[in-house]
Amino acid sequence: MDVFEDIEGLLLERYSDWGGKEQFKGTSTRLKKMLGEMYWTTSQIDEEIDKALGASFEESYNQMLVEGPVSVWTLCPHHLLPCHLEVQIGYIPNGRVLGLSKFSRVAVALGRRPTMQEQYSRELADTLWERLSPDGLGVYVVGSHGCMVSRGVLQKDVRVSTSTLKGSFLDDPGVREEFFSIARK
Amino acid sequence: MDVFEDIEGLLLERYSDWGGKEQFKGTSTRLKKMLGEMYWTTSQIDEEIDKALGASFEESYNQMLVEGPVSVWTLCPHHLLPCHLEVQIGYIPNGRVLGLSKFSRVAVALGRRPTMQEQYSRELADTLWERLSPDGLGVYVVGSHGCMVSRGVLQKDVRVSTSTLKGSFLDDPGVREEFFSIARK
Amino acid sequence: MDVFEDIEGLLLERYSDWGGKEQFKGTSTRLKKMLGEMYWTTSQIDEEIDKALGASFEESYNQMLVEGPVSVWTLCPHHLLPCHLEVQIGYIPNGRVLGLSKFSRVAVALGRRPTMQEQYSRELADTLWERLSPDGLGVYVVGSHGCMVSRGVLQKDVRVSTSTLKGSFLDDPGVREEFFSIARK
Amino acid sequence: MDVFEDIEGLLLERYSDWGGKEQFKGTSTRLKKMLGEMYWTTSQIDEEIDKALGASFEESYNQMLVEGPVSVWTLCPHHLLPCHLEVQIGYIPNGRVLGLSKFSRVAVALGRRPTMQEQYSRELADTLWERLSPDGLGVYVVGSHGCMVSRGVLQKDVRVSTSTLKGSFLDDPGVREEFFSIARK
Amino acid sequence: MDVFEDIEGLLLERYSDWGGKEQFKGTSTRLKKMLGEMYWTTSQIDEEIDKALGASFEESYNQMLVEGPVSVWTLCPHHLLPCHLEVQIGYIPNGRVLGLSKFSRVAVALGRRPTMQEQYSRELADTLWERLSPDGLGVYVVGSHGCMVSRGVLQKDVRVSTSTLKGSFLDDPGVREEFFSIARK
Amino acid sequence: MDVFEDIEGLLLERYSDWGGKEQFKGTSTRLKKMLGEMYWTTSQIDEEIDKALGASFEESYNQMLVEGPVSVWTLCPHHLLPCHLEVQIGYIPNGRVLGLSKFSRVAVALGRRPTMQEQYSRELADTLWERLSPDGLGVYVVGSHGCMVSRGVLQKDVRVSTSTLKGSFLDDPGVREEFFSIARK
Amino acid sequence: MDVFEDIEGLLLERYSDWGGKEQFKGTSTRLKKMLGEMYWTTSQIDEEIDKALGASFEESYNQMLVEGPVSVWTLCPHHLLPCHLEVQIGYIPNGRVLGLSKFSRVAVALGRRPTMQEQYSRELADTLWERLSPDGLGVYVVGSHGCMVSRGVLQKDVRVSTSTLKGSFLDDPGVREEFFSIARK
Amino acid sequence: MDVFEDIEGLLLERYSDWGGKEQFKGTSTRLKKMLGEMYWTTSQIDEEIDKALGASFEESYNQMLVEGPVSVWTLCPHHLLPCHLEVQIGYIPNGRVLGLSKFSRVAVALGRRPTMQEQYSRELADTLWERLSPDGLGVYVVGSHGCMVSRGVLQKDVRVSTSTLKGSFLDDPGVREEFFSIARK
Amino acid sequence: MDVFEDIEGLLLERYSDWGGKEQFKGTSTRLKKMLGEMYWTTSQIDEEIDKALGASFEESYNQMLVEGPVSVWTLCPHHLLPCHLEVQIGYIPNGRVLGLSKFSRVAVALGRRPTMQEQYSRELADTLWERLSPDGLGVYVVGSHGCMVSRGVLQKDVRVSTSTLKGSFLDDPGVREEFFSIARK
Amino acid sequence: MDVFEDIEGLLLERYSDWGGKEQFKGTSTRLKKMLGEMYWTTSQIDEEIDKALGASFEESYNQMLVEGPVSVWTLCPHHLLPCHLEVQIGYIPNGRVLGLSKFSRVAVALGRRPTMQEQYSRELADTLWERLSPDGLGVYVVGSHGCMVSRGVLQKDVRVSTSTLKGSFLDDPGVREEFFSIARK
Repeated sequence: MDVFEDIEGLLLERYSDWGGKEQFKGTSTRLKKMLGEMYWTTSQIDEEIDKALGASFEESYNQMLVEGPVSVWTLCPHHLLPCHLEVQIGYIPNGRVLGLSKFSRVAVALGRRPTMQEQYSRELADTLWERLSPDGLGVYVVGSHGCMVSRGVLQKDVRVSTSTLKGSFLDDPGVREEFFSIARK
Repeated sequence: MDVFEDIEGLLLERYSDWGGKEQFKGTSTRLKKMLGEMYWTTSQIDEEIDKALGASFEESYNQMLVEGPVSVWTLCPHHLLPCHLEVQIGYIPNGRVLGLSKFSRVAVALGRRPTMQEQYSRELADTLWERLSPDGLGVYVVGSHGCMVSRGVLQKDVRVSTSTLKGSFLDDPGVREEFFSIARK
Repeated sequence: MDVFEDIEGLLLERYSDWGGKEQFKGTSTRLKKMLGEMYWTTSQIDEEIDKALGASFEESYNQMLVEGPVSVWTLCPHHLLPCHLEVQIGYIPNGRVLGLSKFSRVAVALGRRPTMQEQYSRELADTLWERLSPDGLGVYVVGSHGCMVSRGVLQKDVRVSTSTLKGSFLDDPGVREEFFSIARK
Repeated sequence: MDVFEDIEGLLLERYSDWGGKEQFKGTSTRLKKMLGEMYWTTSQIDEEIDKALGASFEESYNQMLVEGPVSVWTLCPHHLLPCHLEVQIGYIPNGRVLGLSKFSRVAVALGRRPTMQEQYSRELADTLWERLSPDGLGVYVVGSHGCMVSRGVLQKDVRVSTSTLKGSFLDDPGVREEFFSIARK
Repeated sequence: MDVFEDIEGLLLERYSDWGGKEQFKGTSTRLKKMLGEMYWTTSQIDEEIDKALGASFEESYNQMLVEGPVSVWTLCPHHLLPCHLEVQIGYIPNGRVLGLSKFSRVAVALGRRPTMQEQYSRELADTLWERLSPDGLGVYVVGSHGCMVSRGVLQKDVRVSTSTLKGSFLDDPGVREEFFSIARK
Repeated sequence: MDVFEDIEGLLLERYSDWGGKEQFKGTSTRLKKMLGEMYWTTSQIDEEIDKALGASFEESYNQMLVEGPVSVWTLCPHHLLPCHLEVQIGYIPNGRVLGLSKFSRVAVALGRRPTMQEQYSRELADTLWERLSPDGLGVYVVGSHGCMVSRGVLQKDVRVSTSTLKGSFLDDPGVREEFFSIARK
Repeated sequence: MDVFEDIEGLLLERYSDWGGKEQFKGTSTRLKKMLGEMYWTTSQIDEEIDKALGASFEESYNQMLVEGPVSVWTLCPHHLLPCHLEVQIGYIPNGRVLGLSKFSRVAVALGRRPTMQEQYSRELADTLWERLSPDGLGVYVVGSHGCMVSRGVLQKDVRVSTSTLKGSFLDDPGVREEFFSIARK
Repeated sequence: MDVFEDIEGLLLERYSDWGGKEQFKGTSTRLKKMLGEMYWTTSQIDEEIDKALGASFEESYNQMLVEGPVSVWTLCPHHLLPCHLEVQIGYIPNGRVLGLSKFSRVAVALGRRPTMQEQYSRELADTLWERLSPDGLGVYVVGSHGCMVSRGVLQKDVRVSTSTLKGSFLDDPGVREEFFSIARK
Repeated sequence: MDVFEDIEGLLLERYSDWGGKEQFKGTSTRLKKMLGEMYWTTSQIDEEIDKALGASFEESYNQMLVEGPVSVWTLCPHHLLPCHLEVQIGYIPNGRVLGLSKFSRVAVALGRRPTMQEQYSRELADTLWERLSPDGLGVYVVGSHGCMVSRGVLQKDVRVSTSTLKGSFLDDPGVREEFFSIARK
Repeated sequence: MDVFEDIEGLLLERYSDWGGKEQFKGTSTRLKKMLGEMYWTTSQIDEEIDKALGASFEESYNQMLVEGPVSVWTLCPHHLLPCHLEVQIGYIPNGRVLGLSKFSRVAVALGRRPTMQEQYSRELADTLWERLSPDGLGVYVVGSHGCMVSRGVLQKDVRVSTSTLKGSFLDDPGVREEFFSIARK
């Protein structure tokens, strides 16, 4: 990520006529370190998901479980502005249950690259569906997007909601309604 | 808009017997400039909508997306008093998705001429329906109307809600309910 | 309303042994004037309704519009204690729409005589139904009644809700539910 | 209720070694008077209900009316600890309506003896059903029970909800849902 | 109060052309009974105050006690419209304390005649000061006035606050501040 | 106010290429009538103030009274956009008190011409000070300005607060603090 | 406490004409057991306080500590109706600190006999002052009294606040203000 | 539970270089005592359930009763971190009702061993179903898990909801919806 | 700002193994345009301030005016993460007042370069002080910092408050307290 | 920390008669790992503080900065139950400022060993005072203690507040009040 090396110089030059320019010393190094921590390669994300979904517990509980809101930070891919997503995940297990903190870890990991909310919702549902093979699965995401809050359109209170349903969550109207009435609460 | 030229003189004359009349100097110029910025001709509105709806992104996400409340200011056409609309827009895409800030831009642009809330709701839904050709579309608008708040009837807390549904949002009761349960939240 | 002439004397006599009795001077006059302004004859009420419902606008908007809460003061006919009604009005227009402030004016006018909430709800729905001939119409009223708040039973938080539905609002369960989910919000 | 005569002596004796014991002088008298006012015999309760339900008004209003929350204090029969009930009453009249404060009086009167919430809900519904012969009737009660708040289990926020439905409120799912959506608001 | 005898006839005549006029039958009787219960003569008020302030308890507690908000209904003397007062009472006892429900009874009794809030505040403080002879005393009243809410000026949220301080509450800035910081909370 | 005659034509011409233009028919007439009702000449304002302040009541109450928030609509003189002011008025009377609704009427009347909030606050305090000659007087105003909410800067939650103090409200720190702690609550 | 033996018979006799009378079987036993658990003799209370205040920890922290609201149930000595007290305790230690749960235990124990709030506040402060010998101590109590909520005066929202200050909390205005600003929050 | 004996020494050793180490003296004893009180053996739990469910009352009430939220503390079995569960219990009795505090006691008892929320929900429903043989039964649990709040994933607001339904609660959609609409409120 | 040209390629390469990489097409162009709009050179900022502060109005209002919260977005200079500042500005004018929207424009303009909150507060106060020469001036800023919310320390609710006072705001304790009591409200 | 090795066996043995015992497999390993991450040795804590306080920025801002609430988890040293602290930190810098996230890191690090809130407050203030040498410093901590919430005393809403002031925060009443009015907000 050599491109960030130049940002410090660029800022120092641009604001050479301003008293606050000293603060930019070391910004490139800090920025590079922070981005390395916050944004991962595809293989780093896959590895985290593998670790999180590795273990499960035998348990005959067979009704719906909903967990959330999981707080996830990502970047919108179009302007690289931060987005905050509140994620709700529901599933009906079939014989084995996942440790509760694992859902959060997968939800956080999939936000560690710049991604649209639509794609994020779809990928989170696909990932859990393939790995857990549950009876049914639902993902409901409410996002606040930097691109609408701080930029041009200045729409401070706008929220965007998306969802992806699988199995009995998609097919059975009763299950669907039960999931949404908890997740949207 | 020559008619505004005279407002300054009119106010100065009307309040010639009052100490605050000095503030009106320059009011015509300021008013004219402001109205030019805030209220557009039909072709200016169309141009903004064209720009906003010009680009979309390929994405297989195919469940409902709801965005709002978008904050829109317009004028009621009967008394030219300001109305504030909170707009919720939902759609089910079919292969391509719109950048999230575009919905806000269209909703704001259509308020840039004096319009009744009923007509506004219908026009916003028609515009998005024609341009996006989605599987389904819904618009839900809650308005606070200057004509009821500051004038005669003095009904301070009155809100007016209108909606326009298209495609699966109109025909499928489950989709309809899902849209309203998010939009009215 | 000559009966009110005597109230001043009555109060002055009753409280002749109290330092605050001076305040009653002029009470009869003030009371009479206020009652004349606040409580109207049937023909005054009809006239106001005629004026409010005289004009409408052509508009093809054909989905539901809900307006409220309109704040209405009336008197309960049994003890003449003030009641406060919060009124929600919904309709589905068929070709013409009413100016938004007109609904409020009709709702206020019908409260300008002592009336029970049940009768008020019914009369408001009947009046709008006959004059507007809409596709469907609904009225939902939530009242706080002086007779329960300040008198004997001392039930401070009690609210009373009544409603009257007409046309598609009465017959179509989906329309009915849509109206109530907005009106009761 | 002679048994209360001894309470004063009992307390004075028990706390003879404490500086605050003077406060108990007169407690028996006060307690006896208070209990006489707050807790009635069955015939006192019946008499109050007769008075409250004696008069009604002709009125063609024929949709649902819901009144509440009526605040009722009773004692649980097992530990004689105070319970607070919030009562919602709904009915669909058939030709005659009851004065609004009457519902509150009946609801309060039936709490004037130690009673379980389950029995109270049933008795209130039975009483109104027999006397009013309405089209339908519903009672919904939410109770806070002293036996759970101040005693052993110390469950401070626990609420108990019970209901009793009659006629169209029991048989017609739409009516049932309409009642609960208002009563539980 | 014979003047109220005619009100029923007056209303029946005035609304002879309206379907709801039946409700007025018996209104005079009900109104007269209600006014007798709610509004008392000066001697009835004095008697209630005498009963309430008759007994006190020896107790060496000598710091501030504040009680409220006591809910009081009165009528404004100018238009006879209902006013609701929330009353806070504070005092520093000197050797004897009053039963807590007594303050409420005095506050309610003094509202049982039509009175201005200014006078009410002054009378309540004077009454308690003379009878209790405490170290200091304060009364703080926040009123909602029917004459501003339902009539001409239609100022829905207006509140009026008045206060009367005596002894150390008036003279000692620390005591004054302590009283107001609790009473205004 | 002949200048408003042309507005209707101007709008019809400007939006001749748009389906909603019909709504503008009659706008000039409605606008002119509304402005005549809402915005008054200096002499109309003075007349209303004279009527409101004409009568007062003898009363020995001599501590602080605070009334508000009075809701006032005015126009900013620079862009003629609506401003909403919440006004708190406090005074310490000296022998005579004003009817409570009078303060509201004066506060509303002074907003019936386009005025800056700074000037409005000063004029309201000056007017009451001269007419009432109280011991002390304070005015506290919190405004929401259309010019910041709907226009360029789009600062949705900005509020502006101003105040004007006279007599003991200005000179005595204790009085000043008491006024502000109530008014800013 | 033999007096409670008769209550069961008394209730069964009193309500012999009512279907709910079965519930009273065993009430005497339950009541007696509950009262034994909830209300203690003076020596039981003293013993609990001794245990709670037996141990402390050396710690040089020497600024203010405030703990609360501790939830305490007691009975008013005049009508034996339940009172709920929210207790705030503050102190400035001098070399040793008390385990945090001990304050709560003492506050609860002193409510385990029927006591007036004034006396309770004084006793709690005296007890902690004597045992802890701190630099300063403050107790602030806000009570809800059954005798005002469920009985005659029916003042549902009334709260009573009392306080007792010792040492620097009483003498130093800055310390006093710091305590109250936390305790009243 | 001898293993806890060593914890005190372990902490003293680990923090031998820190001024706060004195506080650990006695920690083993306190910890052991606390764990004995808070966490029970299977037979202790069974015994408590037996006692709680031993007695019931004859009562013909036959509609739904819902009680909650019961506050339950347990430990997650994977990290032994505290979890807080808010439990709602509903049932439709068939001839006999349980004392209201008994539900709370069973719900608390089943949390007195380290357990997953899924298993807890299932066990609570199974226990009540077997013992009460009601018409229908439902359990709804919302948990806050220490393992997500204070540890690695740091998801502060995450809640987990689970439920177990039996009999008519599982089979009848109307009953199911009624239970959830109360329990999730 | 050529450095941003490479970001698109960098992202496409980094996520070449991921299905969402298409979204990055055009990101460099969009990012560059957005940064040009949101972040200005020192001379662009100075120019905007000059325009905003160019005109003022003569007005004798001479007490405090406070405006806010103005919503300002900036970047922290150390990690270039977005910070949101809520700014309150107060001043006491001396003969001339500034149009209300001007304060907002200056506050927004000074955030259009990466800056620490401490420096921002100081610069905003210095700028207004020099240009307006008021009697006194105060700036109070409450910031939410991306570097604490989305990064390492994950402190979701942390707010940072800073202030800068000048003239009578710094020297006069009464003025200072008045400013803060409004600004911190 | 070998003592934790035995916990798994202990739990498996204790609950050998229960179906949920499988969940304990691996608990020792997970517990040990978690404790290593969450609770540090004195030298680990010192090292983190050294890193956090290593760098500062030159800046002439010289008024108060307050940061918080920082969310900190620790264990009470007496029962090893989790405590949650909300920490507010204020200082007046003298020439150099600390990066904002550093305060949070120090506050979190000092909670990474079992500690009493009193000691924690003192240590946090001492640490920052020695390292930053500011003009003044204040720490204000509000704690929720597991030992009062989930254990014996069951005091669900109790909060404990402590503070430590240094330099001008301790000596200057104006500074002290300014700090507390922000920190306690």
